[in-house]
Amino acid sequence: MDKKQYKFDKINLGHGSGGIMTRELLDGIIFKTFDNPYLNQKHDGSIVKIKGEVAISTDSFVVSPIFFKGGNIGELAVNGTVNDVAMCGAIPKYLSLAFIVEEGLGANEFIEIVETIKVTSDKCGVKIITGDTKVVERGKGDKIFINTTGFGEVHPKAEISSDRIKEGDKIIVSGYIAQHGMAIMSQREGLEFESTIESDTTNLNFIIESLLNNFGNKIKLLRDPTRGGLASTLSEIATDTNNGILIHENKIPLERQVAAACEILGLDPLYVANEGVFVAIIDKDVETEVIDLMKKDSKGLNAICIGQITNDHRGKVVMQSGIGGKRIVTPLIGEHLPRIC
Amino acid sequence: MDKKQYKFDKINLGHGSGGIMTRELLDGIIFKTFDNPYLNQKHDGSIVKIKGEVAISTDSFVVSPIFFKGGNIGELAVNGTVNDVAMCGAIPKYLSLAFIVEEGLGANEFIEIVETIKVTSDKCGVKIITGDTKVVERGKGDKIFINTTGFGEVHPKAEISSDRIKEGDKIIVSGYIAQHGMAIMSQREGLEFESTIESDTTNLNFIIESLLNNFGNKIKLLRDPTRGGLASTLSEIATDTNNGILIHENKIPLERQVAAACEILGLDPLYVANEGVFVAIIDKDVETEVIDLMKKDSKGLNAICIGQITNDHRGKVVMQSGIGGKRIVTPLIGEHLPRIC
Repeated sequence: MDKKQYKFDKINLGHGSGGIMTRELLDGIIFKTFDNPYLNQKHDGSIVKIKGEVAISTDSFVVSPIFFKGGNIGELAVNGTVNDVAMCGAIPKYLSLAFIVEEGLGANEFIEIVETIKVTSDKCGVKIITGDTKVVERGKGDKIFINTTGFGEVHPKAEISSDRIKEGDKIIVSGYIAQHGMAIMSQREGLEFESTIESDTTNLNFIIESLLNNFGNKIKLLRDPTRGGLASTLSEIATDTNNGILIHENKIPLERQVAAACEILGLDPLYVANEGVFVAIIDKDVETEVIDLMKKDSKGLNAICIGQITNDHRGKVVMQSGIGGKRIVTPLIGEHLPRIC
Repeated sequence: MDKKQYKFDKINLGHGSGGIMTRELLDGIIFKTFDNPYLNQKHDGSIVKIKGEVAISTDSFVVSPIFFKGGNIGELAVNGTVNDVAMCGAIPKYLSLAFIVEEGLGANEFIEIVETIKVTSDKCGVKIITGDTKVVERGKGDKIFINTTGFGEVHPKAEISSDRIKEGDKIIVSGYIAQHGMAIMSQREGLEFESTIESDTTNLNFIIESLLNNFGNKIKLLRDPTRGGLASTLSEIATDTNNGILIHENKIPLERQVAAACEILGLDPLYVANEGVFVAIIDKDVETEVIDLMKKDSKGLNAICIGQITNDHRGKVVMQSGIGGKRIVTPLIGEHLPRIC
């Protein structure tokens, strides 16, 4: 879309009124960008067909800044919800899209975000089928918040359930951790590093589909460690299932410059948010084959087994350090990096 | 829930961290209140079964004040989305629920809203199946914003489509208009009227289901005139379908004190938001039976035919006044009452 053609410089309260200005925003930007038969119904909702069981997930995105190295809030809002649906063992199909815009947001910025949502949703193979736009007064929001809710068809071979986890199951991490959080953090704090760290925001639905196609119910649990990082996700799994988890520090995939940035800022990468990484807990019999398959996919090049489920220290995550010591990994307490997603 | 038992006075950034404090908020308030097998999966999403076609609708609620005469933002967030799903000709079944909380919101207020959501969703017969909680810094939000996305099964007899509207179809309004907008407006402006005006927020799904059971595809279009009011909804229908709409001013159901409040504030009730009213465009053959059925339901006591579809003045809404004059009803331009829902 030629941004110059759009008739407003800034979003104002009238665009959230439900009247002519709302309609102009919808017709001029939203319907034009996403043009599909679902949205074109122009009703309060949309009607779709979904086969079998439906996986549903919702997330609001409040990341600050809204544009960051490696992406923007729109890309995050699509990938984040697509990934949550995929983690249910499902094939994401549709997204709803709801904006809460602060009065004064530049029309150019809004259009750039909307266009990113279009490109990202196309990459994921999902359609934007219904939406909402609200505008709040200056100082009552922060540029833009986005809610996406995703719907997918549960994969016929999927049997994702934390109840199925047992001793010996392997814990696979798909790639380098802490990239998204450190990209936001370094930008927000105006810190300069030798080279730039980019958010890892990406869609994981196709690599998950491929794993389910090939390994079916040998894939027992899938989670994407976003807010709270890998440590919080593993701690939740240990607590909820009352299993022990043992991980090896020297196996955790961490890029050199991200590690350096964490050190400078005094942050533990285990607690830093990821937006393009997943954890799979799998039957130990398929460890090698799963990792081989993942490494053939651009989203799993650095896949690695970081540990296993154990009957020891039930309900807790224990990390073995490179030099042999062990420590308990607790979940994140309080706030580490606010508004990271 | 005994609010005193909850361990925090105020919501703070840690409650949105994804770590232990988030989990305490979820376990202590959300999971305890909504306790159902879908939410108890405690996964990033939820898996449900839906028969046939699925109707999906999303809305973010940013109403200010969050507590108002006749309801609160939580009640609005459930009824609003349930009604949008119903307007698609569907039976609402499930809701996702996403909060964006401003740091400092009282835990008591949050719990009251969550409990209202529970009571309201039970009344509607829908389950809260998945959710999200984000917290933003003071001054970057406004107490609480809520997104709900609703899913329903399309009614087997429903054939809701604006393409099916034709000359002679009748336009039915289910009850008194402008109540919600005037309740918010009078409270926000600190205005005192002789008696208090309450929001009409309510769920319309059961009356819609009853209409579809009895009249099937004779019900051609359903809309709830929220933001922008009755005038904007009718204008949209006229524009989108290129039909003419003729309505009669003296048929429009308007309560005396709401009319008075509109006069005092210089507002046209046709543009004021409703949250418990719907418009049905129906085959003229069933006008009397539809109204009779509606009047037997507490949500349709004041149902009335306000006009009809016409081949004249295509794309426009014309209102005939009590004394015989005619004027074009335009959609709302700009902002009338910001943050009404």
